[in-house]
Amino acid sequence: MIERAEVERLDAADPLRGLRAAFEIASPEPIYLDGNSLGRLPKRTLERLSTLVRDGWGGRAVAAWEEWVDLPARVGDRIGAAFLGARPGEVVVSDSTTVNLYKLAVAALDARPGRRVILAAADEFPTDRYVLEGLAAARGLELRLLGADPVGGLAAPDLAAQLGPQVALVCLSHVNYRSGALADMAAITKLVQAAGAMMLWDLSHSVGAVPIDLAECGVELAVGCTYKYLNGGPGAPAFLYVRRDLQDAFRQPIQGWFGQHDQFAMGDPYNPEPGMAHFLTGTPAVLGLVAVEAGVEVLAEVGIGALRARSRLLTEFVVALWRAWLEPLGFGLGSPADPSRRGGHVALRHPEARRIDRALNETAGVVTDFRAPDVIRIAPMAAYTTFTEVYDALDRLRALMERGDHLKVDVGS
Amino acid sequence: MIERAEVERLDAADPLRGLRAAFEIASPEPIYLDGNSLGRLPKRTLERLSTLVRDGWGGRAVAAWEEWVDLPARVGDRIGAAFLGARPGEVVVSDSTTVNLYKLAVAALDARPGRRVILAAADEFPTDRYVLEGLAAARGLELRLLGADPVGGLAAPDLAAQLGPQVALVCLSHVNYRSGALADMAAITKLVQAAGAMMLWDLSHSVGAVPIDLAECGVELAVGCTYKYLNGGPGAPAFLYVRRDLQDAFRQPIQGWFGQHDQFAMGDPYNPEPGMAHFLTGTPAVLGLVAVEAGVEVLAEVGIGALRARSRLLTEFVVALWRAWLEPLGFGLGSPADPSRRGGHVALRHPEARRIDRALNETAGVVTDFRAPDVIRIAPMAAYTTFTEVYDALDRLRALMERGDHLKVDVGS
Repeated sequence: MIERAEVERLDAADPLRGLRAAFEIASPEPIYLDGNSLGRLPKRTLERLSTLVRDGWGGRAVAAWEEWVDLPARVGDRIGAAFLGARPGEVVVSDSTTVNLYKLAVAALDARPGRRVILAAADEFPTDRYVLEGLAAARGLELRLLGADPVGGLAAPDLAAQLGPQVALVCLSHVNYRSGALADMAAITKLVQAAGAMMLWDLSHSVGAVPIDLAECGVELAVGCTYKYLNGGPGAPAFLYVRRDLQDAFRQPIQGWFGQHDQFAMGDPYNPEPGMAHFLTGTPAVLGLVAVEAGVEVLAEVGIGALRARSRLLTEFVVALWRAWLEPLGFGLGSPADPSRRGGHVALRHPEARRIDRALNETAGVVTDFRAPDVIRIAPMAAYTTFTEVYDALDRLRALMERGDHLKVDVGS
Repeated sequence: MIERAEVERLDAADPLRGLRAAFEIASPEPIYLDGNSLGRLPKRTLERLSTLVRDGWGGRAVAAWEEWVDLPARVGDRIGAAFLGARPGEVVVSDSTTVNLYKLAVAALDARPGRRVILAAADEFPTDRYVLEGLAAARGLELRLLGADPVGGLAAPDLAAQLGPQVALVCLSHVNYRSGALADMAAITKLVQAAGAMMLWDLSHSVGAVPIDLAECGVELAVGCTYKYLNGGPGAPAFLYVRRDLQDAFRQPIQGWFGQHDQFAMGDPYNPEPGMAHFLTGTPAVLGLVAVEAGVEVLAEVGIGALRARSRLLTEFVVALWRAWLEPLGFGLGSPADPSRRGGHVALRHPEARRIDRALNETAGVVTDFRAPDVIRIAPMAAYTTFTEVYDALDRLRALMERGDHLKVDVGS
């Protein structure tokens, strides 16, 4: 098996090794493998926020809105160009992923009147299911949750079997939050569109982790999160994408003053601004937007190609160490073994996953997270995780299991 | 007429004069009378944000969520206790005012099935009208916009004449964004409830400016903004209030994972957390919330009673100077003359208001804003505006008019 010294040489020779210095990592401990929950702080973000607050808000106050008012479109375009394969004017940053999903799901359902079924995966990220469940109930539609393989995700043929003239909307994650399975965006989008339904992608776990080409795949609607791989900060505003040709025909339900044509005329009835602007709602979260912009810049400078290449090496390394050290200790691989079929994290399965994750975090100095019922997510981030960190983390996991430390953890009922 | 030296003595004797030092006001110029658009930066906010970003996000990363997860309820309770007369557990901070208004308007309409009319004032703040207009169209209801006196606002008897068994929802601003007219919350709420309709108050221009007692007035639903009088920062998250006894019966339409009971179980269908939590949606905007908390603290330490007392003196001073200097120059008073019938700002009316406001901002070093068709808003903030600033600002306005500077301004078509 590989020696630690060899792993250190891997790090020393890594073409992206300099990128870690762009992040505020005061101490190498604990080893942080949870960037897909909350990405780390880029150094420039702190600076950018201080300038915004001190010089913008503090110094110019309301006059600084002339700099801020374009942030939703500017940061959206930045994300769109660097990570989504979107054209200028197809992405804005606004609200949360939950609210954006609601907005676009309503727009999609309104565009398919008479069709009575919404399809989603049974293991879809909770907020997506909750939003769709609420909409289905409010509109008297049926939300059909499709069973999917817990490792490989929803197979295109299984989805195809469910499509038909009653299906209005299909909503899926591009990368599954638990297994990391990467869906075939091109094939699924085509299938869904061929059946006359709308396809809405949640890119929260794929943006910044894997290359995405929304234009090439003909995607109509998408939303995604900025505080995971894009390092936008806790609760950072999310993005939404609507394909150019649909923007003016589609209406989202929350008509706000930032979507109004001639916003400061203030006298007229609602008259949506053409393009993506009318997918905005209230006053944009300026602090959050500035942090997202800084986070996006750091990665955009490197490019998604280089990031994905490094991410594949990192997750392959996790898989190799799992096979050597952890499979013999009863761990299963909860992610596709083929790196081209998974995103930026690897799921390890174990019946005692909850207690093991707790022991790993509390006693071994490794930050991971547990996802019920049996998954520990290992997310080595292309931007800042070293191979040595991966090695040490899984070595500690192995040692912990061999000592039986997890058996001392009380996780309550 | 009063001499400038006397005004300086007023400032020197002001019991709240120390409060200005809590704000980052690097230079006394320009004179800032637009805190009802964007309140100024409290000094502690910059510090608090730096700590949050550096030590929380940077230092602890995802582990800091244990400190952040309570922010929506904690900051909400703080606002509720200090400014709203709400009980603990009746207010949360979440999303924007626009999105919150949408959420509560849907909840209210769902609670009044079969009733087909929504009432609002024709001169209501645009985003409120747009939201209601969108909901009315989506649900096949009628949005009836009531003409109101441009100075005094909607009179209770005029509203009473429109109430009836068809009215589901009445939505009004407590303080009108243009005129500053203060509505009679107790009387109107009672009227609306007696007619069997739901009453939803927008407190954006009253919170932090005038005392509010939601419990005493029996108010059922309210929303409001934190970046005006509460100094929460550009695009800061907004608050929403639901009276305790209605919280569990009411459902808002955007079902998100922050509203879910046992959020991290992640397997179950949507099961709203009791109380206010299910009025949350997606991941809360942590940066914005921390800034709101700091802003709220600064004012809460002084108390709304003292702030309102000082605000009344300031706006009375504006009115006195208007009468002495500006009425002779063709300005009308666009706010109620009785200080107990207005909020924290004074509207001055003039047929050339757009050009005058522009000249005042661009050549006289006074920050105010224009609201179509004929209003300049003068908002001296109890927290940080001095009497001398008010004196100087209106003196400059007078001088500007006498010189005819506004006639040189080209405001386009």
